[in-house]
Amino acid sequence: MTEGFVLLLGGHVFKGITNGDFTLIERMAKVVRDLSKDRKLAIVTGGSDTARRYIEAVGSLGGSKFLQDQAGILATRLHALVMIAALGKSAFPRVIEDYDEAALAFQLGKIPVSGGMQPGQSTDAVAALMAERLGLGLLVKMTGVDGVYDKDPTRYQDARKIEELSYDDLERILRDKLYHPGRYELLDALSIKILKRSSISTIILSGDEPEALLDLVSGKRTGSLVKPR
Amino acid sequence: MTEGFVLLLGGHVFKGITNGDFTLIERMAKVVRDLSKDRKLAIVTGGSDTARRYIEAVGSLGGSKFLQDQAGILATRLHALVMIAALGKSAFPRVIEDYDEAALAFQLGKIPVSGGMQPGQSTDAVAALMAERLGLGLLVKMTGVDGVYDKDPTRYQDARKIEELSYDDLERILRDKLYHPGRYELLDALSIKILKRSSISTIILSGDEPEALLDLVSGKRTGSLVKPR
Amino acid sequence: MTEGFVLLLGGHVFKGITNGDFTLIERMAKVVRDLSKDRKLAIVTGGSDTARRYIEAVGSLGGSKFLQDQAGILATRLHALVMIAALGKSAFPRVIEDYDEAALAFQLGKIPVSGGMQPGQSTDAVAALMAERLGLGLLVKMTGVDGVYDKDPTRYQDARKIEELSYDDLERILRDKLYHPGRYELLDALSIKILKRSSISTIILSGDEPEALLDLVSGKRTGSLVKPR
Amino acid sequence: MTEGFVLLLGGHVFKGITNGDFTLIERMAKVVRDLSKDRKLAIVTGGSDTARRYIEAVGSLGGSKFLQDQAGILATRLHALVMIAALGKSAFPRVIEDYDEAALAFQLGKIPVSGGMQPGQSTDAVAALMAERLGLGLLVKMTGVDGVYDKDPTRYQDARKIEELSYDDLERILRDKLYHPGRYELLDALSIKILKRSSISTIILSGDEPEALLDLVSGKRTGSLVKPR
Amino acid sequence: MTEGFVLLLGGHVFKGITNGDFTLIERMAKVVRDLSKDRKLAIVTGGSDTARRYIEAVGSLGGSKFLQDQAGILATRLHALVMIAALGKSAFPRVIEDYDEAALAFQLGKIPVSGGMQPGQSTDAVAALMAERLGLGLLVKMTGVDGVYDKDPTRYQDARKIEELSYDDLERILRDKLYHPGRYELLDALSIKILKRSSISTIILSGDEPEALLDLVSGKRTGSLVKPR
Amino acid sequence: MTEGFVLLLGGHVFKGITNGDFTLIERMAKVVRDLSKDRKLAIVTGGSDTARRYIEAVGSLGGSKFLQDQAGILATRLHALVMIAALGKSAFPRVIEDYDEAALAFQLGKIPVSGGMQPGQSTDAVAALMAERLGLGLLVKMTGVDGVYDKDPTRYQDARKIEELSYDDLERILRDKLYHPGRYELLDALSIKILKRSSISTIILSGDEPEALLDLVSGKRTGSLVKPR
Repeated sequence: MTEGFVLLLGGHVFKGITNGDFTLIERMAKVVRDLSKDRKLAIVTGGSDTARRYIEAVGSLGGSKFLQDQAGILATRLHALVMIAALGKSAFPRVIEDYDEAALAFQLGKIPVSGGMQPGQSTDAVAALMAERLGLGLLVKMTGVDGVYDKDPTRYQDARKIEELSYDDLERILRDKLYHPGRYELLDALSIKILKRSSISTIILSGDEPEALLDLVSGKRTGSLVKPR
Repeated sequence: MTEGFVLLLGGHVFKGITNGDFTLIERMAKVVRDLSKDRKLAIVTGGSDTARRYIEAVGSLGGSKFLQDQAGILATRLHALVMIAALGKSAFPRVIEDYDEAALAFQLGKIPVSGGMQPGQSTDAVAALMAERLGLGLLVKMTGVDGVYDKDPTRYQDARKIEELSYDDLERILRDKLYHPGRYELLDALSIKILKRSSISTIILSGDEPEALLDLVSGKRTGSLVKPR
Repeated sequence: MTEGFVLLLGGHVFKGITNGDFTLIERMAKVVRDLSKDRKLAIVTGGSDTARRYIEAVGSLGGSKFLQDQAGILATRLHALVMIAALGKSAFPRVIEDYDEAALAFQLGKIPVSGGMQPGQSTDAVAALMAERLGLGLLVKMTGVDGVYDKDPTRYQDARKIEELSYDDLERILRDKLYHPGRYELLDALSIKILKRSSISTIILSGDEPEALLDLVSGKRTGSLVKPR
Repeated sequence: MTEGFVLLLGGHVFKGITNGDFTLIERMAKVVRDLSKDRKLAIVTGGSDTARRYIEAVGSLGGSKFLQDQAGILATRLHALVMIAALGKSAFPRVIEDYDEAALAFQLGKIPVSGGMQPGQSTDAVAALMAERLGLGLLVKMTGVDGVYDKDPTRYQDARKIEELSYDDLERILRDKLYHPGRYELLDALSIKILKRSSISTIILSGDEPEALLDLVSGKRTGSLVKPR
Repeated sequence: MTEGFVLLLGGHVFKGITNGDFTLIERMAKVVRDLSKDRKLAIVTGGSDTARRYIEAVGSLGGSKFLQDQAGILATRLHALVMIAALGKSAFPRVIEDYDEAALAFQLGKIPVSGGMQPGQSTDAVAALMAERLGLGLLVKMTGVDGVYDKDPTRYQDARKIEELSYDDLERILRDKLYHPGRYELLDALSIKILKRSSISTIILSGDEPEALLDLVSGKRTGSLVKPR
Repeated sequence: MTEGFVLLLGGHVFKGITNGDFTLIERMAKVVRDLSKDRKLAIVTGGSDTARRYIEAVGSLGGSKFLQDQAGILATRLHALVMIAALGKSAFPRVIEDYDEAALAFQLGKIPVSGGMQPGQSTDAVAALMAERLGLGLLVKMTGVDGVYDKDPTRYQDARKIEELSYDDLERILRDKLYHPGRYELLDALSIKILKRSSISTIILSGDEPEALLDLVSGKRTGSLVKPR
């Protein structure tokens, strides 16, 4: 697989920052730098505990959901900055705040790295729009789960990972609330709408194993693949 | 005292965010809202543990001091957003990223709230430039210490608080390393240079007692006063 | 009703531009100017035939859905400019391209007028986010239909208008495809999510009768009211 | 002829958008993509019926000439977006809104595409300034007429096309009102002033025959050539 | 005369900066502050020797006319900054770089001050567009001449000042080269075109007598008045 | 020496502009163009008499130190524009106003040229931050002195140039006021702090001899070298 993709890194990947352990980020950056030699990559970073704490603070002090989203966006941009540092010269040298700027980064042969963009949009939606803007046919989301299961794997021992499914399947799983809802589910509704309208596939992988990305590009099936149809 | 001032809130004021305790921020916001009815106020927010952790992450992963400063700035802007939420309609509705925008906020009768602005500048320097830009003659810094001492109060039991001193005195105290250096001292060198050139006084107060600000404006001496001459 | 609201003007209101008939726009502007004396108003303008033709051109010539959305946004901004002209001194003097700028317009006592904002978001979603950002509890959408019906009124003679319903009801109606889908339904999924999370009500009114807005604010029930619960 | 040029596409080229016929635009894009392999090209797009209708709406509703120009600019940017879609990867990926950004596009080896820029300037003037900024010695204007005539060819059967003339000749023709004035003449006064001061030649060609551009670069004389002296 | 106007201050007003004599600027600022209490004013500042020297440097070193204009613009902005300093709280607190921002300044009750805006436009044209954007019916240009003469007063002793004339008259005088051409004539062609299209009158006054502005608003005829018709 | 560096050109280099002598600038540009073929270069331009006169005007008319700094920045940007003209295609095509933009210029293989950036920062500090941002280990300052002396060479005949020293040495020399203070000393305090924290060396060279830069890169010792330790 030599085509490019958008890599969405959930907050899970950045959880070591709290206690000064940057190993996972370093491993991820190494894999990304290697892969970027042969293909176009763009990165979107999610939030984590930091995002959650500041969102809670803004909300508790009377800030609107809009302001809470703005806090979440600032927090995800901290992660984007961390990835830019880790990627060194491979990255476009500032946090992307605008999709056209990501296209500019591509024309320079650099990896655009963004966090959130706008209130009302999760980083799922940002990653989907980024893929659409850059003409990439694949989104790889690496986060705390290693694929889509037929029921919530954190609650049911007999949950089975689904190797391949359609967005319609995924929407049905989410609608039937087979998952206990956290802040955002596997992929949120807006992102699915965009991925469908532009026929972009998604692969859900565990963020704990950056090296699984190498398997993926060498053709090995891993995680779950969600296809437009 | 009815004249306006720049209020620099050290990370100390925001330390409750980590464990979900927003009381101190609420008290501070209440005092600021009250004071802003009679006088012009501008707020600059510092960083805290969040800033330190992300700065460390960026540095450990190979990011330059410049990128580290950028991480610090993003983190202080999270605090600015928290203050905007807490101040409600009294605040200018977005984080100030440019001194001219702060002047615009003033013309609208709103409180400008900023975090850091530029790599190479501490929030001390931002607060000093803000006062200069807005034509305010006073900076009030509220942080983890309640004044300037003749030696480091965290190490010497007999340290005595100095009620009033000049910037030259302060520079001598800092140069003679009477304080154990943290990331930034009471006021950093660049901020002192700006405060001196524009004859702006500084009051150092404890960030644990927002209500001390009320004493201050009613004329009661509290904390330490640093005067241009 | 003296509280403010966001007024979403569907392309229907601007359909006269093609043949040089500006009467409906003039009537709408007069009503808005009057209402704005007593309450805060913000306006979002939708697209019409112009939007559709340029979206089709961009798509046919190989442009992505993202570029197509950008064309739609430019076209809605033409309508925003037309409304700014019609509102004269009551309007903020440029097309709003950013929610914070809308908050600034409010602080100046001026009506912010925007079209679309970002690819991936309909003007429904823009209007919902605008209400959230500005702290307004009501969205009034004026377009080609005069309310929510229990089935598609353009196809069924016995369709009955629903005076009051919940967002959950509305989502069920849309999900069951009781309406023949056009580009956007009564309200799209993202806008409903935002309106629900911030407890903002919506009133659907006919765009052919600007004066119905006057009835509305004087307490007369008209159109359909969608409530958070 | 291998040197680069600015290509000014009059609204005439985009007239098919109204009825869904994109053939002419496709042909033009194909020629431009081919030519851009060997030379630097920049594109400026004019307005058409859409521009005229919105300008009329803004004016009739009380908008100033300045606002009318702003509407015209938005409409020309729709055409710029259409050309960007049609040019695909050959184009700089956003509508140019600033001459320096056009220079940046050139440094990236991409075709900058702009519509209008500022009230008070026609797209003629934009194209002239673009050529000046980019250091290009030639402007090619393709629009509804196929050259400069000694009198208005739409009114006089015996009008003769002038193969080559100076800007002074052109100014005389325009001043003597040998043409029935439309909104803009062949080239407006400001553009001529700029083309003269920087010694940039202009060729006027019919927009109906994109392929004439190929003739032109292979040295065949076509249309009319206006020379600095 | 209580209506507002745009005041265009030629470089002549700033000629004292070279030798440290700021008296004329102070007098001008005093008059402007007084007049701004009762009416809307906007200021545009021209260039002077500084502008000319840097334009020459850029040109001699191989810079295009476009870059030369950019140098001229920077130099006029230095004068804008000087006027902002002299006007104090009456002025909008940053140099206006965009006409919409000038409209915002007006809504705040502050005087917008700009220098040049865009290459290809003299400050005459900027002042004309500013008047058009702000809906002001009068431009007052104060510079090195005290009115329009029937021939060049610097060369002919018997030149007579014309108290009132039309833009058509002015264009004829300029076209017939009754004046020895400097960089810009009394008003340049683009500015006249804009002033005519929006029916804005112009008064030409001597920049040496700021107090003549007071006479003017109290109804006394002074300088030359150019009327749309 | 093939590594890149930041070249800080003091106002001294631009002193010929006042009397129309551009020879020194031309020589400097030629050297820079040559050197830029083999290494990364960035340029920061200082102010001169023009800066000083406008700073004085702004201050005398009541402008704050902040506004005075803004005037200084505009004046240094005039010099940046002059250098961009002189460097032609080797330079990034607009004056750099933001450090990230300088990094973008580098990725395009172009020389970024900036003047001042922010009030409160000398161009010394800008040059130091530029080096830090771009990952360059050397700053070369070319100005009116040809090195660091053990005492002020303009006052003491027996002053001796120091070939190599540390920043600590330099700080001691400046603190002991061995130099008669002008507006800025050899390097100001903020710039030294940044150069130290990122281990960037500085070479002080005479601005009168651009060709000394060629000696420098060919390994010849010239001027004074200030080392982090």
